[in-house]
Amino acid sequence: MQLWRKLLSRHCRNCSDWLDYATDPMGYQPLREAIAHHLSRFRAVQCKPEQVLITNGTQQALSLIVHLLIDPGDAIALEDPGYLRARFTFISSGATLLPISVDESGLIVRELTEHQCDRIKLVYVTPSHQFPTGAVLSLPRRFELLAWAQQQGAMIIEDDYDSEFRYGDRTTHSSDARPIPALQGLDQSNSVFYVGTFSKVLFPSLRIGYLVLPLSLVPIFALAKRLNDRQLPTLEQHVLTDFITEGHLERHIRRMRNYYNHHRQILVQALENELGDRVTIFDQSTGLHLMARLYTQLSDMDIIDRAAQVGVGVVSTQPYYLKAGRSGEFIFGYSDLTDQQIQEGIRKLAKIV
Amino acid sequence: MQLWRKLLSRHCRNCSDWLDYATDPMGYQPLREAIAHHLSRFRAVQCKPEQVLITNGTQQALSLIVHLLIDPGDAIALEDPGYLRARFTFISSGATLLPISVDESGLIVRELTEHQCDRIKLVYVTPSHQFPTGAVLSLPRRFELLAWAQQQGAMIIEDDYDSEFRYGDRTTHSSDARPIPALQGLDQSNSVFYVGTFSKVLFPSLRIGYLVLPLSLVPIFALAKRLNDRQLPTLEQHVLTDFITEGHLERHIRRMRNYYNHHRQILVQALENELGDRVTIFDQSTGLHLMARLYTQLSDMDIIDRAAQVGVGVVSTQPYYLKAGRSGEFIFGYSDLTDQQIQEGIRKLAKIV
Repeated sequence: MQLWRKLLSRHCRNCSDWLDYATDPMGYQPLREAIAHHLSRFRAVQCKPEQVLITNGTQQALSLIVHLLIDPGDAIALEDPGYLRARFTFISSGATLLPISVDESGLIVRELTEHQCDRIKLVYVTPSHQFPTGAVLSLPRRFELLAWAQQQGAMIIEDDYDSEFRYGDRTTHSSDARPIPALQGLDQSNSVFYVGTFSKVLFPSLRIGYLVLPLSLVPIFALAKRLNDRQLPTLEQHVLTDFITEGHLERHIRRMRNYYNHHRQILVQALENELGDRVTIFDQSTGLHLMARLYTQLSDMDIIDRAAQVGVGVVSTQPYYLKAGRSGEFIFGYSDLTDQQIQEGIRKLAKIV
Repeated sequence: MQLWRKLLSRHCRNCSDWLDYATDPMGYQPLREAIAHHLSRFRAVQCKPEQVLITNGTQQALSLIVHLLIDPGDAIALEDPGYLRARFTFISSGATLLPISVDESGLIVRELTEHQCDRIKLVYVTPSHQFPTGAVLSLPRRFELLAWAQQQGAMIIEDDYDSEFRYGDRTTHSSDARPIPALQGLDQSNSVFYVGTFSKVLFPSLRIGYLVLPLSLVPIFALAKRLNDRQLPTLEQHVLTDFITEGHLERHIRRMRNYYNHHRQILVQALENELGDRVTIFDQSTGLHLMARLYTQLSDMDIIDRAAQVGVGVVSTQPYYLKAGRSGEFIFGYSDLTDQQIQEGIRKLAKIV
């Protein structure tokens, strides 16, 4: 925040270039360049600055896509369980929703092909860190999904909301594992909308996200963005550009990756020590939360209520399912808790279980 | 900007309350309170803070209204000539557009009633300072419009984009004239969407506007805003709140009103001195621009081209008309020009005419 304040101050002192309306609804050009460079380097996304639309967070990216692509009666396939705000956006478009199951390798692409619905216009996936299961979409599945989309003429929304925090194999305690390339980078038929955000890597109230578009769709998205809200605020775009190009973002990500990785390890240890064979932890190599299944006679509601009574917040995965949910599945966020809070919380939870 | 920087710095130092997601998509509650208070006091708008939706500028207010109210085939009536970005937004909704003429008392409401189209869902007006003619919608016309809307079951969009800059009668040189009450404040049937912005009174790249809603429509607009982009950035909302509640906005408006009023007088004098009976100046008691008709044999394009050749920018009103435009009508902005630039520009223009 000290650094952020310094950059804000610097730009306020020199305000001649950012007070007026922007001419380009796609966003501040140097920021688009900085993001394109960052994504090429760290996520193997193939993109030129012209393809980058700066959005008011992931939510605006999703709503613009749906607004332009979906007519009532079209179908949208989405991960089940999955991200609720995406689902609500899809519902609001009048689309039919097709929930597709998820396993330890991510979206089960075979279920997509079995649907034989020729009105599937969009598939929504979180391949780096499936929300909420934590599964990473495997490389074979990625190719399978891309082939299906190309054949079907459908578009894929790749929501890469927290891909910066990939911790690598737990046993080696490496915190610098190479991520799997983004779907967008593997795609050869312009079938992918790549969506990202600075909400996780910096802070949510900044409201800066981005949407990497197929080149041919840039003009229509620029028009839609212009009609939607004309442009984003400019000052923060300038500040964020400096933050990236001066190397602060990379340093910040490295530091936060270590910080979150430490919390993750504390949480995993606490779960294993306190709950032993009464818990299964799902893939936890990425992100800011993990999912675990608790084996107990208690209902999910009982666990949530009793945990709340001793000051422990516990989140069931049930609301994230469109089809029938599975009981005993819970999400554990670890980004903003101290070691002691994590350990005490799990100890109390273990007593309940 | 010094003050703005100071306020930004203050909030960066104390960031515990604004970094995370906001819970309310309607905007920062203290800002909604400050705007409600400001509008009640200066514009006779009747509103509680709950009715105020903070928007990403006027554009987002217009696009949300159209998105929620208009189905293809519905009609929208709008001032002709009028504000282009509103027109484009209405076109994108699939609505039929009904251009309504404007005279020196603003929108000719009689034309609305003559249309006998029962699918008019919305009327768009700029009553404080009709864009681009500068006409102020008279009090009788205001009542006539409100009565029509109530009877028709139509909604009015009152776009009050630069109402802060009302200069009063030119002959008295008073710069503190009381504005005519807003349509919204005169309305007794919840027929008005009141739209305002800080783009003119502060700066455009701030991207903070507001939409005062009928109370019954608050829940659906909150949902639409949440689906559209979840929330606006928070930091600037906090800064703007301080700027208003600490009295800086009122002082700023007073200072800028004198500043713009001076430019306006220079422009009017220059037009009268240089062009004499070859010019008619329309209502110029409000805003940051005025409209004038030039009497000449030259076409508008000729005037624009020849003026450009001597470094003078001149804007024709023709593009602002949906029906046939009138030649010889030009818009003169005076907000960001020096006395000398205004005088020299008009001198050069007079030579051409």
